[in-house]
Parts: sequence; C-alpha cells; structure tokens
Amino acid sequence: MAVLELPTYESVISASERIKGYAHRTPLMRSHALDKALGAEVLFKCENLQRTGSFKFRGAFNALSNLDEQHRRAGVVTYSSGNHAQAIALSASLLKIPATIIMPHDAPASKVAATKNYGGNVVIYNRYKEDRELIARGLAEDHGLKLIPPYDNPEVIAGQGTAAKEFFEDADQIDYLFVSLGGGGLLAGSALSARALAPECKLYGVEPEAGNDGQRSFRSGAIVYIDTPRTIADGAQTQHLGEYTFPIIHSYVDDILTVKDEQLVDCMRLFASRMKLVVEPTGCLGLAASYDMRTLVQGKRIGVIISGGNIDLDRYGTLLVQGL
Amino acid sequence: MAVLELPTYESVISASERIKGYAHRTPLMRSHALDKALGAEVLFKCENLQRTGSFKFRGAFNALSNLDEQHRRAGVVTYSSGNHAQAIALSASLLKIPATIIMPHDAPASKVAATKNYGGNVVIYNRYKEDRELIARGLAEDHGLKLIPPYDNPEVIAGQGTAAKEFFEDADQIDYLFVSLGGGGLLAGSALSARALAPECKLYGVEPEAGNDGQRSFRSGAIVYIDTPRTIADGAQTQHLGEYTFPIIHSYVDDILTVKDEQLVDCMRLFASRMKLVVEPTGCLGLAASYDMRTLVQGKRIGVIISGGNIDLDRYGTLLVQGL
Repeated sequence: MAVLELPTYESVISASERIKGYAHRTPLMRSHALDKALGAEVLFKCENLQRTGSFKFRGAFNALSNLDEQHRRAGVVTYSSGNHAQAIALSASLLKIPATIIMPHDAPASKVAATKNYGGNVVIYNRYKEDRELIARGLAEDHGLKLIPPYDNPEVIAGQGTAAKEFFEDADQIDYLFVSLGGGGLLAGSALSARALAPECKLYGVEPEAGNDGQRSFRSGAIVYIDTPRTIADGAQTQHLGEYTFPIIHSYVDDILTVKDEQLVDCMRLFASRMKLVVEPTGCLGLAASYDMRTLVQGKRIGVIISGGNIDLDRYGTLLVQGL
Repeated sequence: MAVLELPTYESVISASERIKGYAHRTPLMRSHALDKALGAEVLFKCENLQRTGSFKFRGAFNALSNLDEQHRRAGVVTYSSGNHAQAIALSASLLKIPATIIMPHDAPASKVAATKNYGGNVVIYNRYKEDRELIARGLAEDHGLKLIPPYDNPEVIAGQGTAAKEFFEDADQIDYLFVSLGGGGLLAGSALSARALAPECKLYGVEPEAGNDGQRSFRSGAIVYIDTPRTIADGAQTQHLGEYTFPIIHSYVDDILTVKDEQLVDCMRLFASRMKLVVEPTGCLGLAASYDMRTLVQGKRIGVIISGGNIDLDRYGTLLVQGL
C-alpha cells in the first residue's frame, strides 16, 4: 500500500490563495439570545451563506483550480447527490472545465436542476443496481477525466480547511470549536487550521447518532464501515471516514460527539427564529452538540461552523411546522 | 395648528451616533442568482439581522436615548402588536428605562412573550372595545410617561434613517432604492439619508396593494385614511401615513409602488432558497417591487432594504409549503 501524502496547513494556505475572489469570506454572526441560552459567547461561521449554499464550494474550487492542463481540457467527474455536486458544477463552470456529475435516479429534482443550472453535465444512475464509484472510475478511464471525490482528497480537504482558517483569523481567542462531520473533509481541514492557528482550542466533530461511524472510528483507532444511516442530516449520511480524512481527524481532533435528529430540528428552529438563517439539518450538528455541552462551555468563547443551508423548501417548511 | 418641526439629515447623523454600539451595523448581502434573475446588481441591507429582528430597534433606541431625565425615571409607553413593541422593550431595558407596551388581546402569544422577555411591561387591551391610543395617552398623563408612537415621531424617523445612511456609506453608487412602507418611518428616514448622500438615486416606497393608502396619499398630495387592510404584510397594516412622515415622503420620494401578497410569498421563498435568509412578508416588499420594475432596473445597481425577519415559525413554514 502506498504511503498517503496528507495535506498540511501549508496546503490550506495555498487553497486560501486559490479560492480568493471566487469563494465568499463568509461572515461570523452572533445572537444575544443564543449566548444567553448557552451561557457562552458563540460565534457562528456562516457557510450556509457560501456560494452554492455550503462549504463544499471551497474544496471543489481548490481541487479544480489546481488541475493540470490535460485534465482542464478533458474535464472532471464526481458522484454526489448533494452539496458537492453543486460545488463541482459551479467551480467547473467558473474555471471553464467540463464537469460530469453522477447522481442517483431518485435524487430530488431540485438538486438535479440546481446542478444542471450551474452548468454540470448530469449522468443518472440507478442507486439500487449500479455502483456510482465504478461508473465514475469507468468514465474517468475511458475519457481521461479527473475524479474529484466528495471528501477523501487532499485538495478537497485543504479547501475545506479555509473556512476554519478564516474563522480563527476573524475571531479572537476561541476555547471550543464544533464542526459537522460526514466523510470528514470539513473536520480534517478544520483540524489543520485549528492546530496551526489555535493550538489550545478544543476541536469537536459532530455527527448524527444514527451514523456514529466517525465516533467509533475515532475511539477504536481504525475506520469503521456502516450501512447508510437513517438521519435527516443528509450531508452526514456517509458510511465511513476516508483514508485521508481519518488519520488527520484521529491525530488532531479532541473528540467526536453525536446528536439526535430531534435536536437538529430544534436547532433549525432556533437558527430561523433567533438568527433569521435557513440552515440545513447537517448544518445544525455543531449547535446541537454545544447545547449538550452547556456545562462545559459556560463562560467560554465557542465557535460553530454552520456547514450549509441547502434544503428543499417544502421539507424545510414541514420540519418547522410539524417536526420529524 | 402648530407648525411641525420635521427631522433632517442632521437628525439622522445624531441618531447614528446615539445607536452606535447598541444597534448592529447590519451587513449588505448579494445573491448571484437574484442578480441574474433581475439583470441588475442588487444589494440587500439586512435589517432582519438587526437586534429584535427589524429596523424598528434603530428608531426606538434613538427616541429613548434622547429622553430627558424626568421621563427616563418615569418611563415610556407605546402601542404595538409587532416589531416596534419588541424594539421599545429591548431599548428600554438596555437604557434602564421602565417601558409599558399596550398590546391587543389577540396578539400572537409569541410576540407578547418576546416583548415581556425583553423586559417590557405588557398591558393587554381589547382590540374591538377599546382604543389603544386613548389608553396610551391616559397612561402617559396619569403617570407622566412619554408616549413613543411607532412611526409618527421625529426621533423615530431619524433613527430609522440610519439604515439607509449605512447603506449608502457601504454601497457604491446606487441607481434605485426600494423601501418597505407601512406608516412611513423607515421610508421618511431613508429619504432624509438618500437626499443627503445619493441625490441622484431614485427612491421608491413599496406597500401591499390591499393597503395602498400611501400611494393614494402620495399621488393626491393629502393623507388618505383607510380601514385596516387585509394583507400578510402585518408591518404595513397601517391605516394612514403620519403628520411627520407624509410631508417628508411627499417631498423626497420618487413614487410609491404596490405589490400583491402572492408576490411577497414568492420573495420569501427566494430569500430562503437563494440567500438562506428568513424574511417576514413586510420585508419582502422591496424585492417584489424590483421584480415588477425589471425592465427599468436592467444593468443598474439597486438597493433593497429588508425591513425585518419576525414571523411566527408555524406561519412561516406553512407559507413556504402551501403558499397563501
């Protein structure tokens, strides 16, 4: 097995130079009401206000802007039914690189439309009969395309790390940072930035209880594989951490926490009523965990990365009114 | 009849100094998708992210921070079932001034709770049997309280004008500005700032079609009185412009436009899906009108003040899912 070359904070700095002028430097926001409820100062990094509605644009744009000339001409391929698809489609369009996105036949029409709208060439596969990674590799080999996976890629991780880099640059001293965890791109990237810029800050990854493979992997020291978890946090329905994300997370993160879907809905409501922000369930993981840690964070300054805000409006409205 | 002393841009400057450090300097936001849809550059001043969730905090805080010592001790009284109530309650609490807020017996429990939560002393009246202005004047006379009405007051108007002042300071040259219109506090204040800072900018007030008293007043040259209009834009359910707001609006505004409630719901959805912002119906007036003016604003730089984001979450979710 080849030794993996893991990204470092230097890779995050390079990514930050590449995405400048393309990605938004998203704002930090605060809420008096949430500060009061938590007994802490809470700073939110609003990646729901990032281009394409999630942090994924950072990693996608970084990976694409670093392609060699041959792949720029041939194009890229990826598989995703969610935020990574839109991020690749827009990044490719901005950089004038052809992009093929493999999406399941049952992906929400709105997500397929958004991906096409950003200029992506969408290929539909049958989720139950076909393997998307095989299709992607096949297309990559047949047409000389570069495969850009959703999280397990050094340049994707480095790009995602720019969110925490900006956070630590814009915030004063922070005691705890809470980050959503799916496949680990955002958390591993955040870890690179946290260890370089805020070595004393405790860093927590947060995943849905139903999909606690990250927690089990972190605590056992080896990547745990699970079935696709049932959770409303669709950005965290990953089955395992990656070969690149796991070692970084294992080395630099303080712990992995889990929360229930009910808590995510409560936090969606808090974001809407207190901060007037639309946040998708996966984007609520950090706030939900910080509520669980109320006793610990009393009187501290804490950071929460709101990972994204992409949710079908019917689904969103229904969750606000009826809950789960 | 006494000659009214109207506020000027100097009053807005003074207000801006008084609210500094208390009110947020709210961000300007943009959306590539909305720019594309309108064929214009659109800058949104996000007063839904203001303290208490609307621009009303600016005027309330300005009026209260300018009270004489006697009234600071005795306190203030106002009537409002909406955003002004919360703005007065929080401002009074920050300035340690007693505040009595007269609210109708059928006001949403959440709004009564929010007002109490900000420290307001709530007095409930029966909307069908009692006159809130009479109750307020009675309390003011009996207890030596200062009455701070929701819009028809020079210091309230000057405070509201700080939103447009910040807007023009932070934005480059703007061709058109669209402002929500209810009783006219925000529009009159915006007019003072626009005429001082951007004399070439066209300024439009926007009200719901069902409550077009502002448009009729503007065009006829005299204040028109109407019954409480049926519209989802509850912040614009006013029955008439004020003695202070009307002459300023009549002198300095370019026109008053109207939009239908259906358009407000469409814009609420656009704000949620494209900008991840929760905006109340009244806050959607400006964007809705700019859509109607698409042909005119092509290639221009336009501003929209999002007046607020306070809406009951059940109502909000239902509007997103079902529409009107």
